[in-house]
Amino acid sequence: MYQVNFLPNNIIIKAEAGENLLDVARRGNILTDFPCNGNGVCGKCRLKIIQGSIDTVKTHHLSGEEAEQGYILACSSRVRGDLTIGLLRSENEESQVMKIESLAEEKSRELLRRAVGVVTQNKMCFGAGIKKEYLELALPTHDDNVADWERLRTHLEKKIGYQEIIGGLSIIRTIPQILRESDFKVTVTHKPKNAESTVIINVEKGNTCDRLYGAAIDIGTTSVAAILVNLLDGHIIAESSAGNVQIKYGADVIHRIVHAVRENGMAELNQAIVQETLNPLLNDICLKANIEKDELSSVVIAGNTTMMHLLLGVYPDFLRKEPYIPGFTGHFLLKSAELALDVNPETPVYIVPAVASFVGGDITGGVLASGLWTVQENTLFLDLGTNGEIVLGNQDYLLTCACSAGPAFEGGGISCGMRATTGAIEKVTIERESFEPNITTIHEVKPLGLCGSGIIDTVAEMFLTGIIDRRGKINKNIHSSRIRFDEYEVGEYVLVFKEDSQIAKDITITEIDLENFIRAKGAVYSAVAVLLSSLGKDFSEIDKIVIAGGIGNNINIVNAITIGLFPDIPLDKYEYIGNSSLMGCYLILTSEDCQTKVQEISAQMTYIELSSNPDYMDEFLSACFFPHTDIEKFPSVRDWQQKNSNSTLF
Amino acid sequence: MYQVNFLPNNIIIKAEAGENLLDVARRGNILTDFPCNGNGVCGKCRLKIIQGSIDTVKTHHLSGEEAEQGYILACSSRVRGDLTIGLLRSENEESQVMKIESLAEEKSRELLRRAVGVVTQNKMCFGAGIKKEYLELALPTHDDNVADWERLRTHLEKKIGYQEIIGGLSIIRTIPQILRESDFKVTVTHKPKNAESTVIINVEKGNTCDRLYGAAIDIGTTSVAAILVNLLDGHIIAESSAGNVQIKYGADVIHRIVHAVRENGMAELNQAIVQETLNPLLNDICLKANIEKDELSSVVIAGNTTMMHLLLGVYPDFLRKEPYIPGFTGHFLLKSAELALDVNPETPVYIVPAVASFVGGDITGGVLASGLWTVQENTLFLDLGTNGEIVLGNQDYLLTCACSAGPAFEGGGISCGMRATTGAIEKVTIERESFEPNITTIHEVKPLGLCGSGIIDTVAEMFLTGIIDRRGKINKNIHSSRIRFDEYEVGEYVLVFKEDSQIAKDITITEIDLENFIRAKGAVYSAVAVLLSSLGKDFSEIDKIVIAGGIGNNINIVNAITIGLFPDIPLDKYEYIGNSSLMGCYLILTSEDCQTKVQEISAQMTYIELSSNPDYMDEFLSACFFPHTDIEKFPSVRDWQQKNSNSTLF
Repeated sequence: MYQVNFLPNNIIIKAEAGENLLDVARRGNILTDFPCNGNGVCGKCRLKIIQGSIDTVKTHHLSGEEAEQGYILACSSRVRGDLTIGLLRSENEESQVMKIESLAEEKSRELLRRAVGVVTQNKMCFGAGIKKEYLELALPTHDDNVADWERLRTHLEKKIGYQEIIGGLSIIRTIPQILRESDFKVTVTHKPKNAESTVIINVEKGNTCDRLYGAAIDIGTTSVAAILVNLLDGHIIAESSAGNVQIKYGADVIHRIVHAVRENGMAELNQAIVQETLNPLLNDICLKANIEKDELSSVVIAGNTTMMHLLLGVYPDFLRKEPYIPGFTGHFLLKSAELALDVNPETPVYIVPAVASFVGGDITGGVLASGLWTVQENTLFLDLGTNGEIVLGNQDYLLTCACSAGPAFEGGGISCGMRATTGAIEKVTIERESFEPNITTIHEVKPLGLCGSGIIDTVAEMFLTGIIDRRGKINKNIHSSRIRFDEYEVGEYVLVFKEDSQIAKDITITEIDLENFIRAKGAVYSAVAVLLSSLGKDFSEIDKIVIAGGIGNNINIVNAITIGLFPDIPLDKYEYIGNSSLMGCYLILTSEDCQTKVQEISAQMTYIELSSNPDYMDEFLSACFFPHTDIEKFPSVRDWQQKNSNSTLF
Repeated sequence: MYQVNFLPNNIIIKAEAGENLLDVARRGNILTDFPCNGNGVCGKCRLKIIQGSIDTVKTHHLSGEEAEQGYILACSSRVRGDLTIGLLRSENEESQVMKIESLAEEKSRELLRRAVGVVTQNKMCFGAGIKKEYLELALPTHDDNVADWERLRTHLEKKIGYQEIIGGLSIIRTIPQILRESDFKVTVTHKPKNAESTVIINVEKGNTCDRLYGAAIDIGTTSVAAILVNLLDGHIIAESSAGNVQIKYGADVIHRIVHAVRENGMAELNQAIVQETLNPLLNDICLKANIEKDELSSVVIAGNTTMMHLLLGVYPDFLRKEPYIPGFTGHFLLKSAELALDVNPETPVYIVPAVASFVGGDITGGVLASGLWTVQENTLFLDLGTNGEIVLGNQDYLLTCACSAGPAFEGGGISCGMRATTGAIEKVTIERESFEPNITTIHEVKPLGLCGSGIIDTVAEMFLTGIIDRRGKINKNIHSSRIRFDEYEVGEYVLVFKEDSQIAKDITITEIDLENFIRAKGAVYSAVAVLLSSLGKDFSEIDKIVIAGGIGNNINIVNAITIGLFPDIPLDKYEYIGNSSLMGCYLILTSEDCQTKVQEISAQMTYIELSSNPDYMDEFLSACFFPHTDIEKFPSVRDWQQKNSNSTLF
């Protein structure tokens, strides 16, 4: 066994001779973000050997000079002795603060009020049917020696009038102690199934009728957000978010599925989401709200179809194989113990229903929260997270599809891309004359890389300044130290020079990045186009566009239109609503009507499989230009170009 | 760390310095039978040091000579170096063959037929409502891309007409693979809850409608028995039994409860019953019947109230404390996964309902099987296992009580007592003139000790030959090498001299054993008396006595009457029915009517708490004689005595 010491925190992990260095780092949760899951493709597991030597293989991700300086890819290196390793990004937990929209913000609250109002006909009711009853039981004697559970059940039956009262094993297990420690005065939390029967969720000592709590959780491929809700008044009393620890097994759903079907892979992914992500998050919100974890009486969880398969441990391989059939799509009601969630074991966990392999409960929940299904206007709902999902509809119809945009909008698939955490460049402008950039990073530290909104800004600005043409190729006629070409004539634009970055190398956008990005934005735009044309509509008939998801509210809509990601319609038709999946969970958590409604929504949504749609490939190819092959589809861009002759490369 | 080598099998267990030797042996499952759970009381953990030295304390269980020869009690000894230890009994697993009545025997079959016939009005129906459906599903396509679970559920709904089809998580988890490996042709096992909804138990590849199996299990304090049943025709196709591994934590329910409330005690007891007893037993019956464990579609379990609390993990301490209130008594329907049974996780497990803290599901199941509730005759049901439970009744009434007889009838509480395993003396006669005994041992090996029937025989013969008087005191006027007194004038009768035994000491019955035994038999007899008198009846009104339980069919009824354990009524009123608890489980496993019936029986049974009954103590004291203070209650014994003047000590 050797010792591998990771600087700067001196975390020492033991390693076998010949062990893969990525596995070593992963074991210590030191490196957690590998889009390609250790296949040598993404180049993101770059480390520097400070001391010791290692077996490593050459990779195009490292120049000869870098390799000489001791830079390696962890995934391509094997331990052969004691090592001291330098981390290039500050990968320790504290710096990994996700930037996630807060549901407590006024705008989100307004959306919530609106949706709850619509669903419940303005009658705000909370708790989704969960009830509490305070009972004072007779003390047992020789003459009244009924067993504890039967004593409790009989008393409750008489009081609340249900014929059948169902108590799970964990309830029965603790009743003898709870009754005696509370002098036979207890509060029963229960949830009726129907008019005849109800299920006990918890038995607490004393009278706790003034306390009733629940949690709503959105599980994204990249990040996970949770809120704690007082179910007596609907107030959000704590919120928290974290990276999805599964990311160490791959950045996107496809890599996760591939890992899941490996030996022990499902168990590793399940451990990562439940033990390493959800349980710490639940712990955190309960700590913040100063309640016990066992006081959570209801949990609602939404996520994309793959995330829900991995959470429930359902074999996921056929999600990614023709004809893309999920194991399940319907809603699920489980006990938290079945998922190993570290709360009261009988707490019901509601899994929001999905539509198809690539349109999950996060989207049905988002549609519920957006109010899309209540309006007359033709509304487009765009969720741009690690995947891109699109819904078009109104009160009469709901059409949906998903496009394999890849993770570009969350910083994936881009050489210097990263998630929207501390150090990510989130806003960019480029000076028209000097081609010098102005950047803003999250939490205003030295830049580490580019997150989604930063990438969109950079690409749009490169286009508007003429650094790139409509095909995404860099203009060789511009003379600037920021624009350069390698030996194979592949161009790149330097956004941040090495000395100004945290990562010991330049932060650039390369032509390869631009190719990846153009395909991502083309996939989204063309998916919208196909969805519209399948109803015989065109872009002018869109009355409203609702943007949701991990892309964040720093997205510059004008820039997104400029590059042809979003359609060229008036800006006042756009609305950014944040984490609509989490809002949907909130609604379902607080309202039984909303729960019924989301089930109706998932059943009503018509799914269009783009991969089998004959028009999609044509639309996609046409959209793989900035902004589009047909500039007439983007009149604003066309008009801007005509006014600014200095940038007319085309 | 030291090494402790246990001979004769050279099993080496590592031990810490200062570790209790009983814990060491227990860890290796080398010693498993400690009635007192290591409290230095029972003296049954006697070992011999062959090599090495040990810290040990003096005990009255070992003479000075024995201590010098290296004999120790494991529970009173601490490791201080490497050791070689000799086992005095052959404690290895092979020799621990329990002698349990076989349900396959013709007599048991007849009882089963009778009970099933009565319950089901002679219409034999099996499977207790569990059904199988063979389905051929349409293969999914792009146009028919319904998820796997919804595809299966919808098809099943149409075919069998239930509105609600419930599938547990373990079903959904594996459906994607099972469907594709079977070309979407599967057999669904399901159990209807009511007219609207049914619960899926299993989904198997192909058509398996000709296979449907279940298991019935009786969990005794001392031994556990299981049968595997073909639920299509009701045939018992395999059976097996084993010692309850919990015995290493105490021989009786009180010691087990005390252990359960210690730190980690419940987990240890649960591990012992589930992982170390039930799972091997289920494995064994499945192997014998050549079926997969996942093919078990139903399990029915009965046991005394304490055993069921420990199986389900319900806090048991109040079972043994005034006023003796159980955590639960009603029936329970669980999934096997909730109990960690190593079979198909969705398999329903039915726990037979109990009546009170000391009258469990083994008794209600036994009453069901005995047919007691169907007859006009006043019938007494006596279950003599580790506890003694008594039911008196007929088709109109059922009265029950339990007596703390102690484990004497299974060999406990007696210095040379043992369970009915290989080497136990099970039959004894004593020559009238010479006082020489004739013994029969189980599996006809050299004797190790006395089991219940052997103890009853020995005591009765000692009484009939005049070795003891009516108080259980040994006659000092008899001159025999087998009768002797120690320095305190405590007498004993030597049944087997050391050189003829396997245990390196004489097998004897001491006056202390006789005192324990007399209290045990007095407790049973007086409980029956109180039960009768509470209805204003006397012994002559008993029409039938049914004997059940672990005491075994080798019990000599005449001897049991002679010593006053059983009432003196005509022998033809007695019937031994074997393991009636297991029979009850069989009936419930195969018949829904029987399941309903046992619930009715448990609700109908009136429990008499003897400890609060003012008459009980008087009756008990009167019964603490051989056969009784009032010889007129035992006319046969009185007549025999009058005829055999040579034995009239009284």
